[in-house]
Amino acid sequence: MSEPIYVIGHQQPDTDTICSALAYARLKREQGADVVPARTGALNPETQFVVDRWGVEIPVLLDDAAGEQVILVDHNEYSQTVTGAENAEIVEIIDHHRIGDIETSEPILFRNEPVGSTATILTQLFDDANETIPTQTAGLLLSGILSDTVVLRSPTTTERDRAAATRLADIVDVDYEAYGKELLTQKSKVGEKSPREMVLSDFKEFDFDGQQVGIGQIETVEPSVVLDQQDAVLETMDDVATERDYAVFLLLVTDLLEEDSTALVAGPEVEPVEKGLDTTFTDREAFLPGVMSRKKQVVPLLEDAFGANSA
Amino acid sequence: MSEPIYVIGHQQPDTDTICSALAYARLKREQGADVVPARTGALNPETQFVVDRWGVEIPVLLDDAAGEQVILVDHNEYSQTVTGAENAEIVEIIDHHRIGDIETSEPILFRNEPVGSTATILTQLFDDANETIPTQTAGLLLSGILSDTVVLRSPTTTERDRAAATRLADIVDVDYEAYGKELLTQKSKVGEKSPREMVLSDFKEFDFDGQQVGIGQIETVEPSVVLDQQDAVLETMDDVATERDYAVFLLLVTDLLEEDSTALVAGPEVEPVEKGLDTTFTDREAFLPGVMSRKKQVVPLLEDAFGANSA
Ligand SMILES: [Mn+2]
Ligand SMILES: [Mn+2]
Repeated sequence: MSEPIYVIGHQQPDTDTICSALAYARLKREQGADVVPARTGALNPETQFVVDRWGVEIPVLLDDAAGEQVILVDHNEYSQTVTGAENAEIVEIIDHHRIGDIETSEPILFRNEPVGSTATILTQLFDDANETIPTQTAGLLLSGILSDTVVLRSPTTTERDRAAATRLADIVDVDYEAYGKELLTQKSKVGEKSPREMVLSDFKEFDFDGQQVGIGQIETVEPSVVLDQQDAVLETMDDVATERDYAVFLLLVTDLLEEDSTALVAGPEVEPVEKGLDTTFTDREAFLPGVMSRKKQVVPLLEDAFGANSA
Repeated sequence: MSEPIYVIGHQQPDTDTICSALAYARLKREQGADVVPARTGALNPETQFVVDRWGVEIPVLLDDAAGEQVILVDHNEYSQTVTGAENAEIVEIIDHHRIGDIETSEPILFRNEPVGSTATILTQLFDDANETIPTQTAGLLLSGILSDTVVLRSPTTTERDRAAATRLADIVDVDYEAYGKELLTQKSKVGEKSPREMVLSDFKEFDFDGQQVGIGQIETVEPSVVLDQQDAVLETMDDVATERDYAVFLLLVTDLLEEDSTALVAGPEVEPVEKGLDTTFTDREAFLPGVMSRKKQVVPLLEDAFGANSA
């Protein structure tokens, strides 16, 4: 028997990453390919809730992708992917982020679209292939869209996300606003975590012009649960920044109801962050009105600021 | 008035590059965007024939893309793109090659598919957008497909290229085999060129693990026209390799009827080429049976060989 192809999302898997891996593996298997959904790490409480809610098996843990064939979903940079990806054969990529640093030697399918979730693109891929979306898969895709777009409220939300969510909600016969609130409640369950779990549970690492930058995000309906233990959180951030030699570690505490974020900062290179985000940190804290999207409202600004810094 | 967005293909434009730029600009304009087809340099005789045949204006020459918004078609690497692209905003990419080194700070549409031509993907994009393909555009897209796939004979040809070509030939009411032969005749008009024009007319530059490698291709029904002046051709290749400091300059003289290639070589790093292509050069010449596609049958092998070399 030949080896399967793994479909895998980013490190620190979130709901869009896991649901996209599950849905794409399903589509590929319908089309006769030997494809297995995989993950890079533990599920967060929201994603665990989604997987239980729709009664699916969680993807297999892939520790090391070296020597394997992999399809990447919901990310396209080496700093965010599974260990060993440099020595894997990347055979496809489906994503909705900036274009990262992955190169291939053969032509492959790379479908990156500026929409609110990878699940939105996967909904399209089922249509393109003339495959009916199974109910279970529709539930997963709906979850991916609602989670990544904060129930269609994030500035990353497009008409296509809305149309896909409406249609998927029809298939599974749920009220997407009500289901979305259930997801938000799960996402907000940060109070029981240690500060380290909190700051690293939704975390991405970037290489900006040779400098390593970590950006975490806590999306919650109760930011006070995090901000009340600010000293412990900042201490943990200092530890992480030192251990990993980060130029900066930025943590966004995003208030899902007020639709803004409080940023906390660690590491030596605070100045480009202040320039990039056009803000000033006081006691290592800054308020960012209207900021909900790390991808759209923070990453491009920091990339430019760090680039300009070194130029 | 705001600046337009330029749709532009690779350096040394070929028929697929020019026709894809024209067709995508047309689609975008139908959708209300201010998009202008552009090119990086002079048209080759085949492409000039196509543009005349379908009665379209040739794309505008874009010398320098710095400060502009650009859509890249038919390529996705900096070494093959318009001057100034590093300082342009790349807003979309539509291609069918390996994934190259372009990164962006914002999420963009990047649609790369492993099919025989970019024109095949553009045919799909008209369908996805529910836009009728105008007759003139159908003629251009058919030309792009037939040129890149050597009238559906190249090993890069997929079922999707065949289906698109058949459909487009229907729209324009031509016999695609007969029209394809007209294109091949144009493509083969190499006899009137100087050796320098010959070796550089369809030429791509690659960065393999820090080493600059040039790979030219002459597709012809009369390889003897090139090989009879082999000494002059090799001398020109030496000059180019020295001027541009290439690790190697490989020229494929591809016999479109016999479906194989004769390779000529210049530059110091011949060994990885021999390893990669599993061949031996005698008097700087090697015969490559069955090799028609630079992209699929040469580039990946050389990339691996040069990578292994430095490792
Ligand atoms: Mn996502
Ligand atoms: Mn092409």
